[in-house]
Amino acid sequence: MPKPIIMDCDPGHDDAIAIFLAAGSPEVDIQAITTVSGNALIGHTTRNALIIAEKAGLDHVPVAEGAGEPLVRTAVTAPHIHGESGLEGPDLPEPEKTVDTRHAVDMTAEMLFQADEPITLVPTGPLTNIAWLLKRYPAVKKNIAGIVLMGGGSYGNWSPAAEFNIYADPEAARIVFESGLPITMAGLDLTHQALAGQEEKEFLREAGTNAAAFTAELLDYFAGTYHSLFGFSAAPIHDACAVAFSIDENVFTTEHLPVTVETHGTYTTGMTVIDALQTTGKAPNVHVARELNQDMFWTMLKNALQRLP
Amino acid sequence: MPKPIIMDCDPGHDDAIAIFLAAGSPEVDIQAITTVSGNALIGHTTRNALIIAEKAGLDHVPVAEGAGEPLVRTAVTAPHIHGESGLEGPDLPEPEKTVDTRHAVDMTAEMLFQADEPITLVPTGPLTNIAWLLKRYPAVKKNIAGIVLMGGGSYGNWSPAAEFNIYADPEAARIVFESGLPITMAGLDLTHQALAGQEEKEFLREAGTNAAAFTAELLDYFAGTYHSLFGFSAAPIHDACAVAFSIDENVFTTEHLPVTVETHGTYTTGMTVIDALQTTGKAPNVHVARELNQDMFWTMLKNALQRLP
Amino acid sequence: MPKPIIMDCDPGHDDAIAIFLAAGSPEVDIQAITTVSGNALIGHTTRNALIIAEKAGLDHVPVAEGAGEPLVRTAVTAPHIHGESGLEGPDLPEPEKTVDTRHAVDMTAEMLFQADEPITLVPTGPLTNIAWLLKRYPAVKKNIAGIVLMGGGSYGNWSPAAEFNIYADPEAARIVFESGLPITMAGLDLTHQALAGQEEKEFLREAGTNAAAFTAELLDYFAGTYHSLFGFSAAPIHDACAVAFSIDENVFTTEHLPVTVETHGTYTTGMTVIDALQTTGKAPNVHVARELNQDMFWTMLKNALQRLP
Amino acid sequence: MPKPIIMDCDPGHDDAIAIFLAAGSPEVDIQAITTVSGNALIGHTTRNALIIAEKAGLDHVPVAEGAGEPLVRTAVTAPHIHGESGLEGPDLPEPEKTVDTRHAVDMTAEMLFQADEPITLVPTGPLTNIAWLLKRYPAVKKNIAGIVLMGGGSYGNWSPAAEFNIYADPEAARIVFESGLPITMAGLDLTHQALAGQEEKEFLREAGTNAAAFTAELLDYFAGTYHSLFGFSAAPIHDACAVAFSIDENVFTTEHLPVTVETHGTYTTGMTVIDALQTTGKAPNVHVARELNQDMFWTMLKNALQRLP
Ligand SMILES: [Ca+2]
Ligand SMILES: [Ca+2]
Ligand SMILES: [Ca+2]
Ligand SMILES: [Ca+2]
Repeated sequence: MPKPIIMDCDPGHDDAIAIFLAAGSPEVDIQAITTVSGNALIGHTTRNALIIAEKAGLDHVPVAEGAGEPLVRTAVTAPHIHGESGLEGPDLPEPEKTVDTRHAVDMTAEMLFQADEPITLVPTGPLTNIAWLLKRYPAVKKNIAGIVLMGGGSYGNWSPAAEFNIYADPEAARIVFESGLPITMAGLDLTHQALAGQEEKEFLREAGTNAAAFTAELLDYFAGTYHSLFGFSAAPIHDACAVAFSIDENVFTTEHLPVTVETHGTYTTGMTVIDALQTTGKAPNVHVARELNQDMFWTMLKNALQRLP
Repeated sequence: MPKPIIMDCDPGHDDAIAIFLAAGSPEVDIQAITTVSGNALIGHTTRNALIIAEKAGLDHVPVAEGAGEPLVRTAVTAPHIHGESGLEGPDLPEPEKTVDTRHAVDMTAEMLFQADEPITLVPTGPLTNIAWLLKRYPAVKKNIAGIVLMGGGSYGNWSPAAEFNIYADPEAARIVFESGLPITMAGLDLTHQALAGQEEKEFLREAGTNAAAFTAELLDYFAGTYHSLFGFSAAPIHDACAVAFSIDENVFTTEHLPVTVETHGTYTTGMTVIDALQTTGKAPNVHVARELNQDMFWTMLKNALQRLP
Repeated sequence: MPKPIIMDCDPGHDDAIAIFLAAGSPEVDIQAITTVSGNALIGHTTRNALIIAEKAGLDHVPVAEGAGEPLVRTAVTAPHIHGESGLEGPDLPEPEKTVDTRHAVDMTAEMLFQADEPITLVPTGPLTNIAWLLKRYPAVKKNIAGIVLMGGGSYGNWSPAAEFNIYADPEAARIVFESGLPITMAGLDLTHQALAGQEEKEFLREAGTNAAAFTAELLDYFAGTYHSLFGFSAAPIHDACAVAFSIDENVFTTEHLPVTVETHGTYTTGMTVIDALQTTGKAPNVHVARELNQDMFWTMLKNALQRLP
Repeated sequence: MPKPIIMDCDPGHDDAIAIFLAAGSPEVDIQAITTVSGNALIGHTTRNALIIAEKAGLDHVPVAEGAGEPLVRTAVTAPHIHGESGLEGPDLPEPEKTVDTRHAVDMTAEMLFQADEPITLVPTGPLTNIAWLLKRYPAVKKNIAGIVLMGGGSYGNWSPAAEFNIYADPEAARIVFESGLPITMAGLDLTHQALAGQEEKEFLREAGTNAAAFTAELLDYFAGTYHSLFGFSAAPIHDACAVAFSIDENVFTTEHLPVTVETHGTYTTGMTVIDALQTTGKAPNVHVARELNQDMFWTMLKNALQRLP
């Protein structure tokens, strides 16, 4: 029986690849895709999600639009990394697939309440929708198997201390991290091990499908911005790491540690504060991703692309 | 010509070893030792500095007492690591050496103004005295060759994000880091490479002097608290790393990066915020210590102990 | 044509009297009552709202339950002022009226979108529902005539700087205050002029209705806690002031000033920061209540009570 | 026996008048004048203090220069209120009087330690020197009779919540307010009652001395900036209020209340947080000035000016 997951995302080049990975992996069953403002404004991320869902052949998977703004802040986007549209690079067709009429938060709650078994949430954007869900429908918790998220880490990419997804809505992140739900955090320490360089790109392209070709185009653009902005010679496929873990927990090691989110610092707002030396005496609440099994990761991704249209 | 240094410290087991290292290294010339509240209250750290200076044969080096409290906060001490006295473990003789009548800050300023060449400051405790010096005597800056400090790092040992020396007086640290002076920061990333385990302890004991024997006793106690508190199997000789760099800059590699100090976070106050990915566009202001040359470090320390009484 | 209003409240003794005032005043037409966690937990405030609506004869007015927790914080309640139930003192009957099945935020949005004319919101509890409404349904703004709220002021009653309603959800308050909507703030400077002492209680009781008798009972309890906690000799009917202004703007004077909400202070979180001397150069965004016309206020209230069952 | 006081100031038009008031009042004996960066940079305030001391005939009173910067922040000045020099308006002669060679903090400590009776400190600028004194010479406290300061209040003039003196060095203010010493705070609520309009100016000019004429010139300039900046029709002689209280405590009423200083707010840093409704349960630590006896105040000032050269 495949594991049911709901993907909450802000595509985003790496979100797109993450959707491909999930769509092509028989171990998981995508119940829904929800969108959030993040890499681009909500109108863009929703449109991008529809396009990618279509390309992945997810005809029966509903795509619902979620929060256009963080819980209590104004929207931050990343056009210098993903372009204004959130998915610059390849030609993007007008999607035929249409958005669900429900708000992402309401649809997710409905699905969770109706599910036969708990569902795993896989957020790969700011955590606005997830926090909102927990605040609006507190009874929903018992139907959530766990949360495997991309975000945070022991250093930042948006500010010295903060990764983008957490920085964009730190209050939401704090609510999620303090929810008591089982959380796995694929942060930058992990995702910067998932670097798609020339070799990896060739390897993926061998999958031979349209999805594989499209992935290569995404990587070309993404690698370009990572090179010019951070001097990286290869692009980290952040979001696919979270999906990979929801498919097979052996894809990276984790350490169970106390983690909280700073929301008040002058220089540190949006930081996931990881208590690695256990100085606080708090109980561990987050499985912090440590080491990626690269062979496994790239093979999973290639195999998935092979199964897609 | 040996390089003139002033050591500002809060002994502290590793401060004591740092003083031994400097005292036994002909490459540096200790002009003065000043004390600050930190590992223990100021009365203890001053007494400990006198004892260690005496054991190190530093008869002509003045020891002056500095700040008994952080600039704007109340004192934090670390009795669970260094004992109430700051130097628990070995028997401590009553020192014959007496403290200079001047306040550490005034004495340091006087020495700097009268020096023939700029002096390097080597602070291995909270940065209260150094910040105070810069605020009280702004003209003194031109006589400071640089600051090589133990403190900070990319994670903490006092809180998840903050190392003790910076946590204890974050406002002082911020003043020092923003001073424009050349700063080298030996933080936890570096000093946790300077682990004195059984092998290193034996190696040092071979130096054969009283100082070497006393060092071994210090390490026994220190290793004990590090083991029970952090699960470390060996004790990091934090402060000696800063002194080692003032002796020979080859002892560790550094990276020149923008670093600031968080003073307002809920969970991150006292953190040295290192902009490793250059997300801020700020100019680098701190040489962040990266990799320790362990052979070199332990050999320097053994050689120094050999030259002491 | 009476002015349509939606009351968002956390009854609460003064919320109850505020509902009576609105219900008995032909100048306003209560479209709905929504509840929020505040003086008591949401279960209590909803039950209390149903009881009061019933006593006020508001048979056709829907009562919907809203946020059980602040946007990003945990709930704060005021049992030492209003009792655990939020409405201690008088005997409370089991309400026959039942709660609307919709969430307060969704119902409010629905009503606003369907309204023939813009509706005035009159929040007299923490601003969680209103902020949530603005975040969830941004297009709703054009259907809101304005917001007349009880909260804030130039000093606090929950902390030295913060009034309870703002303190309980400062982020929500900030969203509302920065919304661009016309806001009138009846803060403590104003509501502490609406003191129901012995004389006022007698005056109101003369209205002779059940509602008047119930009001007197509420005031007895409320005056007791205000006396024991703050040394007040009479109870301030905070929330009725906001309703009174929605009935007739002549009931208090206002000053149009820049106001923001502090969400990060150590001692000042939840403070409404009023720029009375215009030191910031910001445009005024809030009509700050200044002086109460007491005769008018008490007469309005008595007249309203007279018209109720 | 006159009461010994030390004036710590940042002249400043109202500081100048405060010095005149003290110099011409036999009830107090000015032991020293110390300067701090505030209304203008330290070089200016020291020069101004020398000029005013000379005009006041304080030949034997030492003037010592203090902190050129706040404890942990950078200097804020008020050129739009006092002019670049801090004392714009009248012609300023080159002072013959010279500055004491000691640092203000060291000189103050020396005097306090040598005094026959405790001395009252009267700070009318940022509290940097006083905080520094308490940190550097903690034993000095027993020789301080009390602190009567101008600063703070229930609203601000530099930001909506903060008065200039406290805003300029909030950490220093916090140290002073938490020192345990008896503190009287003449804040804006009080000093905005000491308005020198046309009538008061004429009244003072009748004193007929050079000091009175100079005072009138100061008031002309000061009233001008207060009018253009705040729309005031008369200038508040803030600093003279603190001196007046040190002369005769009947000049204003006070209320003994818990007061702390906000140092971390986004909009409220530098606010004196007054717990007027006793919501915190803390012990009162500050005598908060409430109502000025205007007749008494202006008569004291006129009489003092009459006794000066
Ligand atoms: Ca993403
Ligand atoms: Ca140390
Ligand atoms: Ca209420
Ligand atoms: Ca002044």
